Amino acid sequence: MIKRVHHIGIAVNNLKESVALFEKVLGVKAHIESVPSQKVTEAVFKVGKGAEIDLLEPMGPESAVAKSLEKRGEGLHHIALEVDNINTELKACEGKGIQLIDKEGRKGAAGQIGFLHPKSLSGVMVELIEPKK
Amino acid sequence: MIKRVHHIGIAVNNLKESVALFEKVLGVKAHIESVPSQKVTEAVFKVGKGAEIDLLEPMGPESAVAKSLEKRGEGLHHIALEVDNINTELKACEGKGIQLIDKEGRKGAAGQIGFLHPKSLSGVMVELIEPKK
Repeated sequence: MIKRVHHIGIAVNNLKESVALFEKVLGVKAHIESVPSQKVTEAVFKVGKGAEIDLLEPMGPESAVAKSLEKRGEGLHHIALEVDNINTELKACEGKGIQLIDKEGRKGAAGQIGFLHPKSLSGVMVELIEPKK
Repeated sequence: MIKRVHHIGIAVNNLKESVALFEKVLGVKAHIESVPSQKVTEAVFKVGKGAEIDLLEPMGPESAVAKSLEKRGEGLHHIALEVDNINTELKACEGKGIQLIDKEGRKGAAGQIGFLHPKSLSGVMVELIEPKK
């Protein structure tokens, strides 16, 4: 079951510059974190009690975010949906004909994550996330 | 003050097809609505108590969403941030050097809205929305 939108991921070239811009609009400070498993440095904005906004700067050219920046430039990159159980949900999506990028959950910064393929979802990269307890 | 992420807007070519795909993943039915002021037909998914997901199909070629589909294809289009007072926030953003698309709030489907320019926000189209009371 999908519980809520957990966060929105935004690909940026220069984290420091983008953080300064988003801090102006959002009125809150970002929490900066390195996520070597995803090869990104991220800035997490908690916006009220709702979905977070995460800015993502690639650590190197082999990062998925770097490839997205090359192809499409900066901007909205993915939405993440919170689930109770990552593997149950991935399997359920596959059963409904949705193409998966990850067949099983893997470790992300904030929990177990798995991506659905944008081809199956009108060009939208969707992450499922089972947050850390 | 920014209260929360209100919704995520997704540009699609064929609303009916995309609604069917997102219903599979989200597990909820969409509410379909025509929004002539924005020249779109939209499908609104309420996902738990958090941010909504709105699929947007242009009504004609002069719609802003149609131009985005032409340039970038289907996918994530904008994020909307809920505010208490649309005009106060637009003025505050302008005062901080953020370029505006709308100098003043205008009528949207769910309240008074105004857009910030993606040039000022790392390629992200940001909508501010003061929901209907």
